[in-house]
Amino acid sequence: MTRAPRRPCRRIAVCAPATPLRHDQAAATMALAAEHYPGIELAFHSQCFESAGHFAGPDARRLAAFLECANDPAFDAVWFAKGGYGSNRIAAAAVAGLDEAGRAKPYMGYSDCGTLLAALYRAGAGRPVHGPMPTDISRPGGDEAVLRALGWLAGDDGGLEPALGTRPAVAFNLYTLAMLVGTSLMPDLAGHEVLVEEIGEYDYAVDRLFFHVTEHLKGVIAGIRLGDVGQVPANDRPFGAGAEDIARDWCARSGIPYLGRALIGHYPANRIVPFGLEAPAAPA
Amino acid sequence: MTRAPRRPCRRIAVCAPATPLRHDQAAATMALAAEHYPGIELAFHSQCFESAGHFAGPDARRLAAFLECANDPAFDAVWFAKGGYGSNRIAAAAVAGLDEAGRAKPYMGYSDCGTLLAALYRAGAGRPVHGPMPTDISRPGGDEAVLRALGWLAGDDGGLEPALGTRPAVAFNLYTLAMLVGTSLMPDLAGHEVLVEEIGEYDYAVDRLFFHVTEHLKGVIAGIRLGDVGQVPANDRPFGAGAEDIARDWCARSGIPYLGRALIGHYPANRIVPFGLEAPAAPA
Repeated sequence: MTRAPRRPCRRIAVCAPATPLRHDQAAATMALAAEHYPGIELAFHSQCFESAGHFAGPDARRLAAFLECANDPAFDAVWFAKGGYGSNRIAAAAVAGLDEAGRAKPYMGYSDCGTLLAALYRAGAGRPVHGPMPTDISRPGGDEAVLRALGWLAGDDGGLEPALGTRPAVAFNLYTLAMLVGTSLMPDLAGHEVLVEEIGEYDYAVDRLFFHVTEHLKGVIAGIRLGDVGQVPANDRPFGAGAEDIARDWCARSGIPYLGRALIGHYPANRIVPFGLEAPAAPA
Repeated sequence: MTRAPRRPCRRIAVCAPATPLRHDQAAATMALAAEHYPGIELAFHSQCFESAGHFAGPDARRLAAFLECANDPAFDAVWFAKGGYGSNRIAAAAVAGLDEAGRAKPYMGYSDCGTLLAALYRAGAGRPVHGPMPTDISRPGGDEAVLRALGWLAGDDGGLEPALGTRPAVAFNLYTLAMLVGTSLMPDLAGHEVLVEEIGEYDYAVDRLFFHVTEHLKGVIAGIRLGDVGQVPANDRPFGAGAEDIARDWCARSGIPYLGRALIGHYPANRIVPFGLEAPAAPA
């Protein structure tokens, strides 16, 4: 059993399980937090700014930084700095290394970091939360996204995904979820509403990913909601269907209910989705 | 039980389960076949040249063309014209629709068409064979690839992958295999050597795909051989490891034996890999 994480979170540790953040992004995030949430203290682990090839330091370094942030009882929450790719390389060891403090706090992020959220959720450890990250500060309108994340950590539920209801929910980048299904990191999503979003993938790739994900989740989940599917590259010819057509098609083929749209994605509107059943919306 | 397909194949039907071929590619392939294999008659189904958005005709049309080629006893083999994306949308129905004639002949192709080879192999239907396709004629040096495919169909084993040995083998595009694992199209690969190749994917994407594939195949397969990994796009920073390092790393992490290189890929050297145990190499 894990203790229920408590908000407001006063001290928040930031680490980078995948790729590095820039110092100017951390500084801008801290300035925004200081202005709007003076009660929050952000502690950016120095690992956030390290680099080893593609990653924010070697696997062992990223893992160690994660565990330093997670297991330090002085921190009320862990906030992932940026996605990119790499969380899967440390996720199993990260969850296995959690102590009591680490198993009792929220972890927020999205995109590639959804892999860590999944592994935490599978283990019943901490409170995995889909939400914006410090890297979003560089996106046009990104302040809005970062403030939404800080707001939730400060105890404000105003940034929650409006579609959250009486069924447990999770939120994932579609490609990240496709790489998770069937693996040792994948949680049981029986009865869950699964929110998915994508960025920068061809329409045909979105179609292919939906095939894979629906094959794995059919007969298990309560339904799929489609978030933003942005920055779709132009192919040499039009695919012939848009992202929502594709989602509807694979839901119909697999017998998974298509539940409509969600406000998640690699964009400023990206909402908060605590994994599982969000208490305020739970039925009596 | 299926009858063992017999070579040489005299009449070969060509259809396009994914994306369309051009008429000039078919003409060049026919000219090459006429020059080098006058005993072979190639019949390009008109569906090869049709177009519906991304695909070589709508799903129903591509499925119907496949079954016309497969179930016509006048054809000794079915050759897939081109990959691209789309075989997964018709593969289940394609295999379900095979009659006795359709279950008794070789099917050759690769890349996206590996999905159909997988579904056939799972069903024990026909003889799925990884090999070059007519679309390869447009590749520099592509004549060599197309002639190797025609040679195998004509009964020549000279184009077989040299690493084929005493264990059953399959060959797949890595991304295609990643979308197959865990789905209703995926064959049981217990004890198999699995050959994989990739083209046009970032190093980090290759790493991610290897994670997914090795998670699914660990404890099942006999090992992985790495084919060509070509046209890797330049990322904003070097990944820090090449394709073979990545393959070795995930094999080591998952306990799957890494067996070395293979001559398969989206390139002229692409060799023939009949799925299963190639009879000439079988142990006494």
